[in-house]
Amino acid sequence: MAPANPYIKQYLMTAGPTPLPPEVESAMAQPMLYHRAPAFIEVYARVLERLRSVFCTSNDVLVFASSGTGAMESAVANLVRPGERCVVASCGKFGERWAELCRAYGAELVHYDAGWGNKVDPVELDATLARSGGATVVFTTLSETSTGVVNDVRALAEVAHAHGALICVDAVSGLGAVPCEQDAWGIDVVVSGSQKALMAPPGLGFASANERALERAQAAPGRRFYFDWSATVAGQRKDPPDSPFTPAVSLLLGLDAALGLIEAEGLDRVLERHRLLGRATRSAVRALGLELFGPDDDGANVVTALRVPAGIDGSRIPKLMRDKYGITIAGGQGKLKGKIARIAHCGYFGAFDIVTTIAGLEMTLLELGYEVELGSGVAAAQRVFVEAGVPAAQPA
Amino acid sequence: MAPANPYIKQYLMTAGPTPLPPEVESAMAQPMLYHRAPAFIEVYARVLERLRSVFCTSNDVLVFASSGTGAMESAVANLVRPGERCVVASCGKFGERWAELCRAYGAELVHYDAGWGNKVDPVELDATLARSGGATVVFTTLSETSTGVVNDVRALAEVAHAHGALICVDAVSGLGAVPCEQDAWGIDVVVSGSQKALMAPPGLGFASANERALERAQAAPGRRFYFDWSATVAGQRKDPPDSPFTPAVSLLLGLDAALGLIEAEGLDRVLERHRLLGRATRSAVRALGLELFGPDDDGANVVTALRVPAGIDGSRIPKLMRDKYGITIAGGQGKLKGKIARIAHCGYFGAFDIVTTIAGLEMTLLELGYEVELGSGVAAAQRVFVEAGVPAAQPA
Repeated sequence: MAPANPYIKQYLMTAGPTPLPPEVESAMAQPMLYHRAPAFIEVYARVLERLRSVFCTSNDVLVFASSGTGAMESAVANLVRPGERCVVASCGKFGERWAELCRAYGAELVHYDAGWGNKVDPVELDATLARSGGATVVFTTLSETSTGVVNDVRALAEVAHAHGALICVDAVSGLGAVPCEQDAWGIDVVVSGSQKALMAPPGLGFASANERALERAQAAPGRRFYFDWSATVAGQRKDPPDSPFTPAVSLLLGLDAALGLIEAEGLDRVLERHRLLGRATRSAVRALGLELFGPDDDGANVVTALRVPAGIDGSRIPKLMRDKYGITIAGGQGKLKGKIARIAHCGYFGAFDIVTTIAGLEMTLLELGYEVELGSGVAAAQRVFVEAGVPAAQPA
Repeated sequence: MAPANPYIKQYLMTAGPTPLPPEVESAMAQPMLYHRAPAFIEVYARVLERLRSVFCTSNDVLVFASSGTGAMESAVANLVRPGERCVVASCGKFGERWAELCRAYGAELVHYDAGWGNKVDPVELDATLARSGGATVVFTTLSETSTGVVNDVRALAEVAHAHGALICVDAVSGLGAVPCEQDAWGIDVVVSGSQKALMAPPGLGFASANERALERAQAAPGRRFYFDWSATVAGQRKDPPDSPFTPAVSLLLGLDAALGLIEAEGLDRVLERHRLLGRATRSAVRALGLELFGPDDDGANVVTALRVPAGIDGSRIPKLMRDKYGITIAGGQGKLKGKIARIAHCGYFGAFDIVTTIAGLEMTLLELGYEVELGSGVAAAQRVFVEAGVPAAQPA
């Protein structure tokens, strides 16, 4: 089970968990703090405020000790009443998780499946809502990590609202990598997690619900406790803010450091950096004669998925890259197993992470028998960075 | 909100989060690992095995990214069906949480409240079960953190089983501090958390359910997803084990280091150390002429609660100790606010943590106008350690 050479220098290029900045690593190693002592409360209050900036919202961003799925479940547990109609608009594995959650909570589920690798189409969503006679909530995905697709959630929100439905967006891998302006775009609920573009370890889930969503939740209590929004809202609105259950202190110390880095770089520059990272990766993939999976979309800047070339065993690409070169990328999940490879660039990534990964990919493909001119993908990525005039394109 | 002197050396003496051993702190600062890469899977598999030893069970100990309350909710969500009768046998704040959870999940709740500071009485539980015509599940608490009381869950399990009920024990603060032999005592479900005697940061919840409990859960699916036992059982039983949702990698690295320390010290010696820490603390409290809150119980070795002497504002004790001396103990919660003070000694604690805390308590009480002979409590604690012939009574 051990890698071929366990001492090889490691490069983490997966879409979660993502690499930690050194500032976050050392924050995690701090001595434990009592969660009701001033030293922690100060951190907690600052994290809550900084999350608002990243979510582009004036809502309370509710913090749970949980994975991203826990935050998704909080939305379903608080919004879905048994027998009420919900629409899930999905295009991959994580969108389908909304459907599993809605089924578990007894919704009358209408599932619009746009297909893995496609974008959710606002026109199709509109037709789905019209056909089904409306819905109380539409659940969809900002960045579908399983395929690299990024949806136009702003347009989807308009469609949902036109039909009187709330919209709830899974932004677990997208938030902090691609634009997601909750208040300006009128998104009722955005859920996310700590371990992707927010550059912190996994274990924190976030839910930002507007007043309309909170009211709907309060009107139907029961059969939820840990993920009950009202308990967490009440705690976080106290002065000083408090958590109804013991918060994950170390993870919050790490997140505080990570959000501080985002604040210092500036959210706009963070998003611009991700745009360049995505563009450079796609450019490199094309230069190697490989096919992108999904639409060649200038906005899909979280994960780049490429089709495994014919005649190559797709599962060998990530394995060889990891075992021989220490570079961890992801293969396909579910129905895409062995068919695609995914290079993530959300979070603590800069230009030379892309250079490294593309160089390793070239060497791996060569060994697997795919004809590749070494350095040609790297050069394409370099050109994107040089043309953008952002030599480093890394966090300041 | 800042302490009087923020540079003062800090001592954490609360019952969760508890102090981290240096080995755990540095484990937390490791670079992030992909949760499906061999380097992490090795840690994950080892943690799952080490948890079995601490729970004294052959069950799969299910691991959730959540606080301890999340693990408690998993038990209620998987075991409680709407309208079915459940008995909660409580004696403090955390026992009452079982009642809140059962109500949220629609149980027909029978609540036997033994009163804050008392132990749950097996005879009374027997009478409760007889009166109510049985129950499907009994929920109770091993160590009631709000009062320091430790219940005889072995006797309570016998009573529950005699009435055909399953028993589910909250061992969040007790596990690893006082004996809890799940399989030998026949406890159907034990839930716990990472941040107490297990010496890791908060953010991991555990549920160890036997086959009878797992079967009951499987017979009634629905309205749960993240905390659904079957999904986590299925993942953890894979070879290699997998987590259905992104695991809290850093916390698991920290937990692995902490469980390694428990393994090295030996669980028996760990429990004996806690017995001495509890005995020394109680002895010191008595030597200061203070009254213990709850029964003077040689088995209550997680948290020592003392009554605030008449004429003293109870909320000032923890505040002054923290602000002036850097020692963080806890006051009373809920109905005990201002009436008790709680000194924790579960987890990474040794003899001289008790010496420090008692010394700080003496100095604080003196300043608050309580007549105390400086050093007299400390001496009482020292005598316990000297007589036990365990000069260090600390982790090896």
